Amino acid sequence: MSSKLFAIVIGAGTGTGRSCALRFAKAYPVVLMARTPTSYQDTVNEINSSGGKAIGISADAADVASMDSAFESIKTDMAGLRLAAAVYNVSAGYGVKAFLETKVEDFDASVTGNARGFFLFAQKTMPLLLDAVGAGQYPPTLIATGATAAVRGSAKFSAMASGMFARRALSQSLAREFGPQGVHVAHAIIDGGIDVPRSKGYVMNNGVVDGKLSPDAIAESYWHLHTQHRSAFTQELDMRPFVEKF
Amino acid sequence: MSSKLFAIVIGAGTGTGRSCALRFAKAYPVVLMARTPTSYQDTVNEINSSGGKAIGISADAADVASMDSAFESIKTDMAGLRLAAAVYNVSAGYGVKAFLETKVEDFDASVTGNARGFFLFAQKTMPLLLDAVGAGQYPPTLIATGATAAVRGSAKFSAMASGMFARRALSQSLAREFGPQGVHVAHAIIDGGIDVPRSKGYVMNNGVVDGKLSPDAIAESYWHLHTQHRSAFTQELDMRPFVEKF
Amino acid sequence: MSSKLFAIVIGAGTGTGRSCALRFAKAYPVVLMARTPTSYQDTVNEINSSGGKAIGISADAADVASMDSAFESIKTDMAGLRLAAAVYNVSAGYGVKAFLETKVEDFDASVTGNARGFFLFAQKTMPLLLDAVGAGQYPPTLIATGATAAVRGSAKFSAMASGMFARRALSQSLAREFGPQGVHVAHAIIDGGIDVPRSKGYVMNNGVVDGKLSPDAIAESYWHLHTQHRSAFTQELDMRPFVEKF
Amino acid sequence: MSSKLFAIVIGAGTGTGRSCALRFAKAYPVVLMARTPTSYQDTVNEINSSGGKAIGISADAADVASMDSAFESIKTDMAGLRLAAAVYNVSAGYGVKAFLETKVEDFDASVTGNARGFFLFAQKTMPLLLDAVGAGQYPPTLIATGATAAVRGSAKFSAMASGMFARRALSQSLAREFGPQGVHVAHAIIDGGIDVPRSKGYVMNNGVVDGKLSPDAIAESYWHLHTQHRSAFTQELDMRPFVEKF
Repeated sequence: MSSKLFAIVIGAGTGTGRSCALRFAKAYPVVLMARTPTSYQDTVNEINSSGGKAIGISADAADVASMDSAFESIKTDMAGLRLAAAVYNVSAGYGVKAFLETKVEDFDASVTGNARGFFLFAQKTMPLLLDAVGAGQYPPTLIATGATAAVRGSAKFSAMASGMFARRALSQSLAREFGPQGVHVAHAIIDGGIDVPRSKGYVMNNGVVDGKLSPDAIAESYWHLHTQHRSAFTQELDMRPFVEKF
Repeated sequence: MSSKLFAIVIGAGTGTGRSCALRFAKAYPVVLMARTPTSYQDTVNEINSSGGKAIGISADAADVASMDSAFESIKTDMAGLRLAAAVYNVSAGYGVKAFLETKVEDFDASVTGNARGFFLFAQKTMPLLLDAVGAGQYPPTLIATGATAAVRGSAKFSAMASGMFARRALSQSLAREFGPQGVHVAHAIIDGGIDVPRSKGYVMNNGVVDGKLSPDAIAESYWHLHTQHRSAFTQELDMRPFVEKF
Repeated sequence: MSSKLFAIVIGAGTGTGRSCALRFAKAYPVVLMARTPTSYQDTVNEINSSGGKAIGISADAADVASMDSAFESIKTDMAGLRLAAAVYNVSAGYGVKAFLETKVEDFDASVTGNARGFFLFAQKTMPLLLDAVGAGQYPPTLIATGATAAVRGSAKFSAMASGMFARRALSQSLAREFGPQGVHVAHAIIDGGIDVPRSKGYVMNNGVVDGKLSPDAIAESYWHLHTQHRSAFTQELDMRPFVEKF
Repeated sequence: MSSKLFAIVIGAGTGTGRSCALRFAKAYPVVLMARTPTSYQDTVNEINSSGGKAIGISADAADVASMDSAFESIKTDMAGLRLAAAVYNVSAGYGVKAFLETKVEDFDASVTGNARGFFLFAQKTMPLLLDAVGAGQYPPTLIATGATAAVRGSAKFSAMASGMFARRALSQSLAREFGPQGVHVAHAIIDGGIDVPRSKGYVMNNGVVDGKLSPDAIAESYWHLHTQHRSAFTQELDMRPFVEKF
């Protein structure tokens, strides 16, 4: 494990966030962020008890003061280390609702959590990533988790799609601005249900085995993105179960 | 002119909004909306003095109370008429800024004006458009003005692109939900500078004649969208000067 | 009717081609092209007997010698006139087939008719269109009819999609090369079944009225594309029935 | 190295093809295919002399008889092994040419090498890949190398884009048809110049270090695609140098 670098995963719950934290913890100390310790504490313990190093910080990605305070903590906790990778995995404002039953609060919740939070997270992490260019084996990397709703507006997904389209807009804009400065910015379109504890009850793809995305598999591709040579950065890739219609 | 129908154009300033109001006023009474009368008053006068019928209403598209109040007025002013067409042409939060100099207020301004306003405008107009299905010669139509930044995130456009991507997300979602109910929802990607009074000083495409989009030409295509047969709805089209690189 | 200009529609059968010929014949003499007179003769007669002017020419768009000969005829038949608009509406190699049952001949037929024919048609018409810049009221226009299979490869559509993707590639390439020279090149994504005599038996969208595209409606949008001001060219638009899933 | 599986790379020259062969040879015996032994012989020797196993077969991907014969050889040479991965890396008909100077032969060359060859290669390899489902550690994989010209038609790229769009159409169609059967089909958009011997003289991105794609980096991502879990298949990803404008 490199002693010079660390990683941050925000939206570190039981699915993709947890798997990313575990995957990146094989190489770096990891900061797990979520609104409440309930989300990250088990994973923090799991990492620390298996030879890795992790800390958890409670923060609301979309709240300026909360992010200011969280990154002050990180500065202290990770003193002397540079930021190798940051993963934005917050999901917010999800809800399938007919448009005329969708409240402006639903719209606000989606845009706030899905895009404003990513904006603030990027504002906090980008200076740290720029500072890490050339410091580690791999180019510093900022990855955002996207969804089908990031590339396709659908009936009853007006709120969700608004926030996810905006998140993708940010990811593209940042890639074009910071790629030439050596920071790798990527966006992953997760097209399908993820196999997490709370989705156990949902039957997808007729219940076929591997009909939901394994969060560990997603994390493995995120790690691959992080390791890509700077002459061959991927900005966007999709991921879906082999049986998913698309 | 049909006496049973009317149209609304919001973001009715000196460019596309004004041209749309003039174009749709050839067929319908038109409500022009903008934050201040300065934006719409000249156009309202121009329409009324040349045989058309227009009223102006001051409103902030992104403000719930303001929209509530504006649509109460419209209900009274246009009593007995149904809504044939609504155009969302608000532009907000424009600004080319390096990401690390972009404030969260810039992000908020773009998302609020470019997307939240469209959300609220659609919430107000969609019930009226649904109520007009079958009432006029053409299917009721909701058109949103988009931009290159709606399909492409660019360096220094992080705030702008976030709002415009979200606007496009809404347009697609609404098209898929309300098309089958007979309402035509379309999104126009305006790819280039528009030839408006305030852009006179900007040299675009080396100053070649017609190197900026004529707002009247844009309005003509919006009118065409409105007249499309319901068996052949266009959801999205691009428009750019013949000399524009793309 | 302008006496200085003419139009060409290739793939002039009973659907979109016929409707385009009729629509453009309101303004220009029209050349209808198809492989056999059976396809175009009735429409030619219909135009000529109702005050318009039309001729039919038999040609295979994808065959060099056939196109050479056809355009020699056109040169004579339309002597003194310039080419205002050309529509490529050939459809070829259609067939929904499992990939492993698809023959290389199916692939060749699709690519040949859907793309090679458009390549040859554009090679013949582009010099004529360039020669017409500034000659008529509207910018000279080359329109290609596309399909869902031009933007989406689907199971069992490998041959069809190959040809239609290539057609779209050509349209984009030509738009970018010849737009700045004043020629408008556009591509229409027709997403749905067209209401033509031979599709009468196919139930689409549960048989709902207007669940298939009216070819007259398509032609009306093609005409609109032709009339667009050069400061606001559309390169691509989609068209589908209001009830079509997309 | 697995003794039950093998891989095929066609278009095995000095760049991406060579790097893929070397990368996949770490895990599998590899068949290198190209039109002439000059293209693949050095790489075959390099693999065999460093502990791997490789054979070279001369074949023209776009020629039916040549492919029939080549795959008869493969059947014998790789008797008892199943096909783990196949990479289509042929590039053909490249040439930046003004449209009116482009010959139909240029169009044919691009479509033939870029798409027809992939069609035939997929017809030959897909039955073998289907037969390998479940046989190895990773899902059997078919990867096609794409380019910017696969997603964007540009001035002077009419021939090139036609073939590359068609190749992408095939890749999508095959992914949608064979993904549910367990075969992973992916398309990589290589957006930039590749750092190969014959491009040494071309200055790209102002000559900045890593301004051309490392073919080894591309191969590393192809290998990652091959190893993806079937619950998280990537259909498409882009790759470009960090300094590339896009």
